[in-house]
Amino acid sequence: METTAILLLHCPDQQGIISEVTKFITDNKGNIVYLDQYVDKVDGMFFMRIEWELEGFMIPRDKIYEYITTLYAQRYQMKFSLYFSDKRPRMAIFVSKMSHCLYDLLARWKAGEFNCDIPCIVSNHEDLRYVADQFGIPYYVWSIKKDHSNKEEVEKAEMELLKKEDISFIVLARYMQIISDEMIAEYPHHIINIHHSFLPAFIGAKPYHQAYERGVKIIGATSHYVTAELDAGPIIEQDVTRITHKDTPESLVLKGKDLEKIVLSHAVSKHIQRKILTYKNKTIIFS
Amino acid sequence: METTAILLLHCPDQQGIISEVTKFITDNKGNIVYLDQYVDKVDGMFFMRIEWELEGFMIPRDKIYEYITTLYAQRYQMKFSLYFSDKRPRMAIFVSKMSHCLYDLLARWKAGEFNCDIPCIVSNHEDLRYVADQFGIPYYVWSIKKDHSNKEEVEKAEMELLKKEDISFIVLARYMQIISDEMIAEYPHHIINIHHSFLPAFIGAKPYHQAYERGVKIIGATSHYVTAELDAGPIIEQDVTRITHKDTPESLVLKGKDLEKIVLSHAVSKHIQRKILTYKNKTIIFS
Amino acid sequence: METTAILLLHCPDQQGIISEVTKFITDNKGNIVYLDQYVDKVDGMFFMRIEWELEGFMIPRDKIYEYITTLYAQRYQMKFSLYFSDKRPRMAIFVSKMSHCLYDLLARWKAGEFNCDIPCIVSNHEDLRYVADQFGIPYYVWSIKKDHSNKEEVEKAEMELLKKEDISFIVLARYMQIISDEMIAEYPHHIINIHHSFLPAFIGAKPYHQAYERGVKIIGATSHYVTAELDAGPIIEQDVTRITHKDTPESLVLKGKDLEKIVLSHAVSKHIQRKILTYKNKTIIFS
Amino acid sequence: METTAILLLHCPDQQGIISEVTKFITDNKGNIVYLDQYVDKVDGMFFMRIEWELEGFMIPRDKIYEYITTLYAQRYQMKFSLYFSDKRPRMAIFVSKMSHCLYDLLARWKAGEFNCDIPCIVSNHEDLRYVADQFGIPYYVWSIKKDHSNKEEVEKAEMELLKKEDISFIVLARYMQIISDEMIAEYPHHIINIHHSFLPAFIGAKPYHQAYERGVKIIGATSHYVTAELDAGPIIEQDVTRITHKDTPESLVLKGKDLEKIVLSHAVSKHIQRKILTYKNKTIIFS
Repeated sequence: METTAILLLHCPDQQGIISEVTKFITDNKGNIVYLDQYVDKVDGMFFMRIEWELEGFMIPRDKIYEYITTLYAQRYQMKFSLYFSDKRPRMAIFVSKMSHCLYDLLARWKAGEFNCDIPCIVSNHEDLRYVADQFGIPYYVWSIKKDHSNKEEVEKAEMELLKKEDISFIVLARYMQIISDEMIAEYPHHIINIHHSFLPAFIGAKPYHQAYERGVKIIGATSHYVTAELDAGPIIEQDVTRITHKDTPESLVLKGKDLEKIVLSHAVSKHIQRKILTYKNKTIIFS
Repeated sequence: METTAILLLHCPDQQGIISEVTKFITDNKGNIVYLDQYVDKVDGMFFMRIEWELEGFMIPRDKIYEYITTLYAQRYQMKFSLYFSDKRPRMAIFVSKMSHCLYDLLARWKAGEFNCDIPCIVSNHEDLRYVADQFGIPYYVWSIKKDHSNKEEVEKAEMELLKKEDISFIVLARYMQIISDEMIAEYPHHIINIHHSFLPAFIGAKPYHQAYERGVKIIGATSHYVTAELDAGPIIEQDVTRITHKDTPESLVLKGKDLEKIVLSHAVSKHIQRKILTYKNKTIIFS
Repeated sequence: METTAILLLHCPDQQGIISEVTKFITDNKGNIVYLDQYVDKVDGMFFMRIEWELEGFMIPRDKIYEYITTLYAQRYQMKFSLYFSDKRPRMAIFVSKMSHCLYDLLARWKAGEFNCDIPCIVSNHEDLRYVADQFGIPYYVWSIKKDHSNKEEVEKAEMELLKKEDISFIVLARYMQIISDEMIAEYPHHIINIHHSFLPAFIGAKPYHQAYERGVKIIGATSHYVTAELDAGPIIEQDVTRITHKDTPESLVLKGKDLEKIVLSHAVSKHIQRKILTYKNKTIIFS
Repeated sequence: METTAILLLHCPDQQGIISEVTKFITDNKGNIVYLDQYVDKVDGMFFMRIEWELEGFMIPRDKIYEYITTLYAQRYQMKFSLYFSDKRPRMAIFVSKMSHCLYDLLARWKAGEFNCDIPCIVSNHEDLRYVADQFGIPYYVWSIKKDHSNKEEVEKAEMELLKKEDISFIVLARYMQIISDEMIAEYPHHIINIHHSFLPAFIGAKPYHQAYERGVKIIGATSHYVTAELDAGPIIEQDVTRITHKDTPESLVLKGKDLEKIVLSHAVSKHIQRKILTYKNKTIIFS
C-alpha cells in the first residue's frame, strides 16, 4: 500500500470547490485514490473526503496543511483535518467486566483489520486482565470506590497514562463508568462508546430491562462519540435485531451482545480509516 | 374452511393446564387445528391460543363460553376470550390526509387477506374521499376546528356511528388527532395506531424531524394499541430501515411510509386472526 | 420545482473528469443541484450522475446533447444519457392475476410519488380490470392460449399498443408470461421485473415452493431489468424477510407479497428518477 | 441450575400426544421447565421439545430412555433423542487460515455462553496455532498435499483423534477442505459448517466473488449440517447484509466475515442447547 494523505473538509456549499481541490492535487502530481462528497441541502454545507498518494506529490508532506490553510481555508470558510496513512492512530480501550466487545476488537486488530496501535487497556476491575494477557497488551486497573470518592484521582492517573502513551482516541468497550467532562474535553469526538440500546430509546442504565418492560419487538445497539450530555453524542452506527414476547431480560442481554460488538467494531474501523466527519451533533460517514 | 372456535387464555402457570384443555376439546370430539402456548417465567404466567373445528364438537357453540367458565376459569384464575371464525370483526378506519396506509389496508382487504367487514371510513378531512369511493365504502367527514371547540361534539357523532355500525375495532391509519379517553374506554385494546417512529424513541409530533435532528442511522415504525397515555400502549409490531446522513426530513417521510403501511397492516392482520393477547402493557403474538 | 437536465455518464477513469464536467456546467451558468460519482477500481471505470437547473443555462436544451458529444464523448470514450425533468416517462404495467404490486404502484402514482404517466395496463387475464377501472386507466387484455399458439400474434398487438402510446418503459408487476426476445430488444434495460425470490437462488417457477423444500430461513424478492436470459438481468433492488420452520408454502407467498411490492416500487421509483446506470449486467444505483 | 432431561421427538400427528407426554412427566413428579411443539400440517408430523428437572423425578435417569421406548415409541411411530443437561457435549473445531469464526467461538466459550468442552482444534495449516495457544486448547495440524494424495491418511488420523477425545460434534469454522463421506457418516447431522453465501445461491468456491460478478444487492451466510452433497445439508441459520455497487470482492469478504461468525456461533449455540431437530433435510429450531 502506498502512503496516502487524507483530507476531510467541510464548508458552506459553493460552486467549484470540488474542481479546485481536485485540481490542486492533480496539478501537484498527486494520484487521487478516493473522492467522496456530499452536500447538505438543508444547511447548505459541503463535505468532502479525498485521499491521494504521497509518492510523487510535489508539495512536501509537512507543508500540505499550510498550503490548504493558505489557499482555501479562509476563502471558503473551510474546516479541515489532514491525516497520513502511515501515521497509525493509538487506541486505548476501557473495559469493565464483559469481554465480548474487547475480544471482538482484539481479534480484528490481530487479524490486521485495524490499522492502529493498542498501547493499553484500562479498567476499573481485574476481571479482564486475562484477555489483555492473551494478546500481550498492558492492562491497568484503577478501582473506583462505590461512593466515587477517588474518581477524580483515578481519572487523573488515567489521563497521565493516556498522555504518556500518546493516545489518539479512546474506545469504551462496555465500560460502566461515566467519563468526566475533563476527559471528554481532552478527546472531543475522539471517545467512542457503545450504548446497548437503539438510541435515543432507553438512555441510561439497564436498557435491556427497560426494553423488556416496554415490550418492544426490536432491540438495538448504538455506537456514538461521547459528549458531555449522557448518551447524546453524534451517532456513528446502529443496528437492531428482532425479539419476541418469549425473550427475557437475560436473553435480551445475550442477543444484544452480538449487536454491541459488531456495531462498536464497525465504528472503530470507520474512525481509524478517517471516514467520519462530525457536524452539528451528527456524523457524515463516508463509504 | 371449516368454522372454528378460537380460545385465547392466560392464567398463573400450573402443571397440567395444557393437558386438561386439550383433553376437554378432544373428549368432546373437537379437532384441534392450532395450538400454541407460552410460559412467562418472569411472572409465572401461562398463555395459550387453541383453535378447533366446530363440526362434530359435542358442546353447542352457545354453551362453550359457559363450560369454560365453569370448568376452568375460577379454578385456574383464568382470563379468556372466545371467538368463532365465521363471526367477522367489523373494522372502522380513521384517516386524515395521507393515503398510503389506507390503500394498503383496502388493497389487502379486497384481495381477501383480511377476514373482516369495513362498514365505514371516518376522517377529519375530505381529502381521501376518492379512495373510499374507489372501494365503495361510506366515507364520513367531521371537521375538527383548530381550537378543538367542537371536538367533543364530533367524537359523540363518531361514537354514534361506531355503535350504529356495530364496529368491533378501530384502525388509525395515520389519523392525526388525539383519541379521547372516552373512546379509548369504549374500545380497550381495540384501537390500533401506527406511530411513525421506533417507539419509545420520538414520541409525539413530527418524529421524522426529530430523527433527522438526532442523526439516527435507522428509522422505524410502530403499531400499538391505543391507551390513555400517548404512544405508550402495548406494541404489536415494529420494523425499521437504514438511513444515512444523505437523508433529509423529506426522504425520511418517504422511506417511513413504506414501513408504516406494512407494520400497520401486519398488526391489523394479527388482530383479525385473534393472534394477539395483551398482558401488562405488552402483547403476546402467536405465530 | 425548476426544470433540470440530468446527465448519466460512464467512461474509463481519468483524472480531471469531474472538474471538467462541473466546469462546463457552471461556466455556462448552470446551477448544479445534484452530483454523485463513483469509481469502479476493479474495472477502472468512472460513473457520474449530475443534475442542473435549465433556468439561466446558456446552452439551449436541444443543443446540450450535441455539446457533450462533441466536447467529451469521444475524447473520454464516454457513454452518456441525457434527460429533462419535465419530460415525464410513460410507463406500461403488465399484470396477470395478483393485485398487490399493481395496487402499490398505482397508490404511489396517485399520491404523486412517481413523476410519470401510465397510459395503459396490459394483461393476459380479465381479473384485474376492476383495479384499472378504479384508477381510470385503460386496461387491455390479450389472452394467451395454453399452447402459446397465439403468443406471437399477441405480442405483436402489444407492441403496437406500446408504440401508439409512446411507452418509455415497462413494469412486469407479477406478469406470469415470458417476454419474447423481440420485445426485450425493443426495450433494452427498460423492462423491470419483480422475481419472487432472492436471486440467483430459486430461478424460474414457484420459487416459494422451492424455498420451502430447501428449508431456507430467509426469503427474498428481486427487481431486475429483463434480459434474454431468464431471471439473469441486472439486479436493481433486493429485500428479504426471516421465516421459520413454521411457515408453509402459503404463508411464504403471503410474506413474499409484501417484499415484492416494496422492492418493485422502489426499483420503478429509481428508474423514473434516472438514478440507475447499468454496466456489465450490474446496476449502479445513485443515492 | 438444576439438572434437566431434554426430550426431542417427532412422529405422525395424532390427537393427545402432548397430553400423554406431559402427563407421563408430571405423574412421575417431573417439573417441566420447557415445552414447545409444532405441527407440520403439510406432512402431518408432530414435533416436540420438552425439558424437565430430574430432581424428584421418580424414574431413574438410566431407565428413562427405556420407558419412553416402551410406552410411546412404537405406538406413535415416534423417533426421539434424550439428553441430560449435565452431560456436556464435546466439540472439535476445524479451521484453516481465517481466525474470525474461531475467535468468536472461543470468546463465547470462555465467557460461559457454550455449555460444552473443546478438547481439540484441528487444522491443515499452522497459521492459527497461536489462537489455540491463547486459549490453552491442543492444536493438531495435518497438512493435506495439493494433490490430496495423503487425504485419506489424514482423515484416518483425525478420526482417531475424534474417537480418542470422545467428540460429540464437529464445527467447521471456515475449514477449507471437503469432508469425506466416511467422516460425515460417523457424524450424521453432527458436523456444522458455515458457508459464506446465502444458500442455495453461490454454492461452492469463492461465493463472494460470485456475488460480486452477479451484482447482488445483499450478501449472506448460512450455517448448515454437512451431508454428502456439497452445501446442501439442512440449514440451521442464515443472515444477510446490504451491499452496494461500491463494494469490491475484498469489501464483501470483510462484510461477510461478520455475518459468518455470528451465524456459525448461533448455530453452535442452538446445537449445544439441543434445540435443533432435523427432518427431511430441514431443521426445526425450537425457541
